[in-house]
Amino acid sequence: MTMSTPYPLKIRAVWYDKESNTVCWVNTLKLPFKEEVYCSNNPERVAKAIIEMEIRGAPAIGVAAALAVGSYAVEVSSLPLGDFAMSVGKAIDTLWRTRPTAHNLFYALNRLRMILEENVGKNTSPSEIAKMILDEALKVMWEDIESNIRIGEYGAELIPDGATILTHCNAGALATSAFGTAEAVMRVAWYKGKKIKVIATETRPMLQGARLTVWELWKEGIPVTLITDNMAGYVIRRGLVDAVIVGADRVTREGYVVNKIGTYMIALAAKRNNIPFYVAAPTSTIDLSSSINDVVIEERNPREVKYVLDKLITVEEVNALNYAFDITDPDLVTAIITEKGIVYPPFEENLKKIMKDRG
Amino acid sequence: MTMSTPYPLKIRAVWYDKESNTVCWVNTLKLPFKEEVYCSNNPERVAKAIIEMEIRGAPAIGVAAALAVGSYAVEVSSLPLGDFAMSVGKAIDTLWRTRPTAHNLFYALNRLRMILEENVGKNTSPSEIAKMILDEALKVMWEDIESNIRIGEYGAELIPDGATILTHCNAGALATSAFGTAEAVMRVAWYKGKKIKVIATETRPMLQGARLTVWELWKEGIPVTLITDNMAGYVIRRGLVDAVIVGADRVTREGYVVNKIGTYMIALAAKRNNIPFYVAAPTSTIDLSSSINDVVIEERNPREVKYVLDKLITVEEVNALNYAFDITDPDLVTAIITEKGIVYPPFEENLKKIMKDRG
Repeated sequence: MTMSTPYPLKIRAVWYDKESNTVCWVNTLKLPFKEEVYCSNNPERVAKAIIEMEIRGAPAIGVAAALAVGSYAVEVSSLPLGDFAMSVGKAIDTLWRTRPTAHNLFYALNRLRMILEENVGKNTSPSEIAKMILDEALKVMWEDIESNIRIGEYGAELIPDGATILTHCNAGALATSAFGTAEAVMRVAWYKGKKIKVIATETRPMLQGARLTVWELWKEGIPVTLITDNMAGYVIRRGLVDAVIVGADRVTREGYVVNKIGTYMIALAAKRNNIPFYVAAPTSTIDLSSSINDVVIEERNPREVKYVLDKLITVEEVNALNYAFDITDPDLVTAIITEKGIVYPPFEENLKKIMKDRG
Repeated sequence: MTMSTPYPLKIRAVWYDKESNTVCWVNTLKLPFKEEVYCSNNPERVAKAIIEMEIRGAPAIGVAAALAVGSYAVEVSSLPLGDFAMSVGKAIDTLWRTRPTAHNLFYALNRLRMILEENVGKNTSPSEIAKMILDEALKVMWEDIESNIRIGEYGAELIPDGATILTHCNAGALATSAFGTAEAVMRVAWYKGKKIKVIATETRPMLQGARLTVWELWKEGIPVTLITDNMAGYVIRRGLVDAVIVGADRVTREGYVVNKIGTYMIALAAKRNNIPFYVAAPTSTIDLSSSINDVVIEERNPREVKYVLDKLITVEEVNALNYAFDITDPDLVTAIITEKGIVYPPFEENLKKIMKDRG
């Protein structure tokens, strides 16, 4: 299964290697200092890569998990049907438990689980089911890429020539299978000749902004300037920013945006200074079944806060909190850019509408 | 000149060593990993310590500069009056140019310059003038400590028992000659038996929160939890914080608060979530002669942003912005805690009143 795209996919974060029947990924923990690629069809190994954030970003996690299950299903397709079903089911469970917040992961794995259960019920042969699961996983991947390109095209319309865009964390190629979500908007605007500039926050604790967004945009040739997270408010207040664009890990039915820790304060600063705050997210990120009260905000190891790239920055004995995400209220969001079009408030109503249109 | 204080001064950042006639300081760049002390009466050396942030924090900078000029004046007091006046004047100029934003520096140096000029005019002997300048510098230091204790006593009244306080950067003993400003409030509340807890932001790029505030509070035995800067909004939104207290580098006549970069976004989050946002600042920080339009926001070397504790965190070639301070609008500030009492809005009016009361 291949597809042609109207823009170059210069950076791929997750892909399927047919020859070895594995999912391959760039170890984003090592960027920008080293470009390290791993390939595996072992669900435990891919789960570890997700938990430890070799693979990160809601869409990339969903795609990697799907491809891990798909390639693993092929790997174990010589088992008798019962064992096959149990093994693949267990693989889905293993990947399901990796990270609690992003919706795309559950969305992708549910699609595969449905195919598995339906076809085990029909007594389809393991090798046929495996092929179907792998095809569905590849579909998840290509849908992601297609979605990103459409998000880019819708979003680029919102960006004036010469605009300076502030972004947080990495909602780029390295957070998806390719092209990115927030970065898709920047890429399409740039490819269409708009002379944009980007301000990227470093994004502690894992520095995805400093390590990934800066590297990605620098590779594209898009002018990028790094700031610390706590500088975002002042550069907005000073008038240096025309629009904020971020990704999302989950959008609830009410339009709450769950995204990388720090997003909320940037949204507050954008609102206060009357600049648009855009969220770029495929509809796979939108979960109409979840209210904001259902969302689990992942707390990660305090060590990530107390260390920067393995260097201790504080008193060893001190406690640290490490919330990975925060919640941005719907009234702070100007629009949500999806592959189906741009959703404006009232979000509760308009998200339902756009999801109904979903193919 | 000594003074007794009602609370222990466990940590001193800047002091005068009579025996060697030098100003001594803790090199805060090395904390919490190493407690390194330097002493000097060379104005160039002390200026370097301020520029490179061995000494930091508006009150500490003011005191260190004053003591540097005082001890240097004694050092050169055997010169003929004309040479003495020129040398000490030059020393004042050198220290004046170190950092552009904090008001305390200019306030302290102006006091010494007035004594110098008045007494050179009167033909007073260099050794007598030197003694007067050093005495004035020591007065600046003791006023700072006294102010801090009073700030602590006024501020502690605002803090309920069991409260969790969020603070940014270090407005502690290590930002003053002793006791701190925002931390003075915490100290007095703690010494009076209030079971407070503190959440400290790490404060990139120089990590004064992670390195200094955490260390200082940990030494006092006050429970402290570290967060990244971008977590402040979410911990406030989640209801984990009862009050924010920060220091200030300058307060303008309109009540704009110039403080460490990142303060503004914390103030926005506090406002949004209806928790008080307090600024602890001695009146030496308040500059009735300056409007917000006169304030120069210092831009420091981008290297500080691109590196964390000498470790590169991004693409070497990328540009970075490095604003050291930001501006918090008066409507975001609940009250300013000074050594003369607590100032509430309207600030333009009430700051004038409290400054008139100033001895």
